[in-house]
Amino acid sequence: MKRISLIGGTGSIGVQTCDVIEQHPDLFELEAYAFGTNVEVATEWINRLRPKYVSATSIEVLEQLKPHLTYEPLYFIGPEGLKECATAERADIVVTAVVGAVGLEPTLAAIQAGKDIALANKETLVTAGHLVKAAVKEHGVNLLPVDSEHSAIYQCLNGERREDVSKIILTASGGSFRDRSRDELADVTVEDALNHPNWSMGAKITIDSATMFNKGLEVIEAHWLFDIDYNDIEVILHRESIIHSMVEFKDAAVMAQLGNPDMRGPILYALSGPKRLEIEGNKRLNLKEIGKLHFEEADFNRYPALRLAFEAGRAGGSMPTVLNAANEVAVDLFLNGQITFLEIERLVEDAMARHEVIAEPTLAQILEVDRAVRQQIQQGIEGGE
Amino acid sequence: MKRISLIGGTGSIGVQTCDVIEQHPDLFELEAYAFGTNVEVATEWINRLRPKYVSATSIEVLEQLKPHLTYEPLYFIGPEGLKECATAERADIVVTAVVGAVGLEPTLAAIQAGKDIALANKETLVTAGHLVKAAVKEHGVNLLPVDSEHSAIYQCLNGERREDVSKIILTASGGSFRDRSRDELADVTVEDALNHPNWSMGAKITIDSATMFNKGLEVIEAHWLFDIDYNDIEVILHRESIIHSMVEFKDAAVMAQLGNPDMRGPILYALSGPKRLEIEGNKRLNLKEIGKLHFEEADFNRYPALRLAFEAGRAGGSMPTVLNAANEVAVDLFLNGQITFLEIERLVEDAMARHEVIAEPTLAQILEVDRAVRQQIQQGIEGGE
Repeated sequence: MKRISLIGGTGSIGVQTCDVIEQHPDLFELEAYAFGTNVEVATEWINRLRPKYVSATSIEVLEQLKPHLTYEPLYFIGPEGLKECATAERADIVVTAVVGAVGLEPTLAAIQAGKDIALANKETLVTAGHLVKAAVKEHGVNLLPVDSEHSAIYQCLNGERREDVSKIILTASGGSFRDRSRDELADVTVEDALNHPNWSMGAKITIDSATMFNKGLEVIEAHWLFDIDYNDIEVILHRESIIHSMVEFKDAAVMAQLGNPDMRGPILYALSGPKRLEIEGNKRLNLKEIGKLHFEEADFNRYPALRLAFEAGRAGGSMPTVLNAANEVAVDLFLNGQITFLEIERLVEDAMARHEVIAEPTLAQILEVDRAVRQQIQQGIEGGE
Repeated sequence: MKRISLIGGTGSIGVQTCDVIEQHPDLFELEAYAFGTNVEVATEWINRLRPKYVSATSIEVLEQLKPHLTYEPLYFIGPEGLKECATAERADIVVTAVVGAVGLEPTLAAIQAGKDIALANKETLVTAGHLVKAAVKEHGVNLLPVDSEHSAIYQCLNGERREDVSKIILTASGGSFRDRSRDELADVTVEDALNHPNWSMGAKITIDSATMFNKGLEVIEAHWLFDIDYNDIEVILHRESIIHSMVEFKDAAVMAQLGNPDMRGPILYALSGPKRLEIEGNKRLNLKEIGKLHFEEADFNRYPALRLAFEAGRAGGSMPTVLNAANEVAVDLFLNGQITFLEIERLVEDAMARHEVIAEPTLAQILEVDRAVRQQIQQGIEGGE
């Protein structure tokens, strides 16, 4: 029996994690459940999976939740609650499915408490890869990817020797604007941008998919997860999102992981891999029906976000934090109609140009850089930049 | 240091095996080398790799060879020589790269002598799968595939649990006539048939690729190699031959092995896997250049050979021997201009229809069925059938 602590229970990954836990009651038990404000979804899953620990953003949210629960868990709130859930004594593995920098501290706390980590929070490795990797090494825990791309790579590496890897090939769908030239991006609307061809995801990640900042963040994550040089990471456009990623080995063999888009696969693999389990309602891949798989170059001129991510990754230190924070604010501004789509990239590039890298930032420095970058950009916009 | 005995040294697989052995003198040593009649190729590789045992078809061939050698190996001839090479005392692994039923006895002898087998001889598993598997189990040796498709599957299974496999997906290029309808096959020439789009191979296997008997034999081999039910083996047309085959697991994840066509990959993996080694001159896969991968159904009406192979495999016992022997004779007849392309399938189907299955044939019975089927078909043709 594996006991799971879920940090970020009401988002897309959180709900699908609950689904796979419920499908395998003989193998998994939900020990702790932390969520933000979505009481309706939280109520549903808490009652179904009955975690011992429950944490919400605030006391107000907890008060809304309590009357609906059919049993009495231990209640927590706020960042402290996240940490309590992440370090819950009986938890074996922590699924960090919260979005944003808020995932960083509970993840580090969980590692220090000796928990394995199923990582669905991008910011953790992007902003604090060096701290996380050092902690993982010190405490001898497993850091398991939940992203479909990184899970694919992780599956391709199963049974292989690290020294035989020559290249990691991340596939990218190209997002909602992949068939448009750069010139055609000038006046795209928020609605256009939110219309992702393959995956149904949150707004932030759908925009990131259109700019390719999402893939850029994945490049930085891959660097840390698989301890691989940026020169040995390639991004390739693959519009069908059927090959989730690939690994090339030194004998020139390429191993790939394929499937229909369904995040429950990567989630379950993080929880039980290399053992594979049935997933109810999971649609089998039918390549005859799909007919064709396409591959194209992911051009840095067409997708400057990719270039910026490689640059930030290579610069290292605090630079990826700048990339990430600037992008988050810029995406918000775009979604609010305050900037155009192409200004997202420009704001990120400007923020990176202004930043002086701190080589091995502490957690406090990372959080301070994150805050400062957000503030700068907000002020720039409000100041009528 | 791994000591290798090579049975069938002058064919395509034999020569490429010598190439990879020569590329890794620190890891591999050629202990024994058996060939047929090609003195020129044999001389070259024997002098370069200096095996202790050398065997040829006949004393005449040996006498032609001897003056060209730069050292004095132990000489053998005929089927006895094959067996001596296959059981050479210091050999760790035997590469069986001979074509035809002649590979059967030395392979079984090698297994009984405790040698691992790198299997490139199709007939071994197709005709005597039950005997080979029993011997492999009894003597605790490894049976390693050299075919690109089976090697792909074997690589996809690395690190996986056998019970997690739900399906094996063999890819097929479709051969030289894949873009023709059945009606357009009536009057194809030998020259047309020998023009394979992706692989440069011998005449027999190129014709087998056009009829799909090659893929059919691979289906039967896969059944034995991976201990998988025929219901869980699927053949899919994939014209580029870039995905060499795939495995679907019960979580719906599909693992695939990809690469440019180069048999040295599978050979080397059989000799050193799961450790991967560099291969000089091996062209890296560039999917951006390739652009598209295509997948289509492998229709049993378009490719009756596939249907026949599944039928023979399911009938079991001596039936796959009938399929194989009838096909071999029929391909010979086609190559000699004595029958049309479509008659290949008809002769195999007729031979299978006439045959009464022997459930668990002995080696002697297999060889007798093989002989009888060949004779029947030859007589039928000569008798003006």
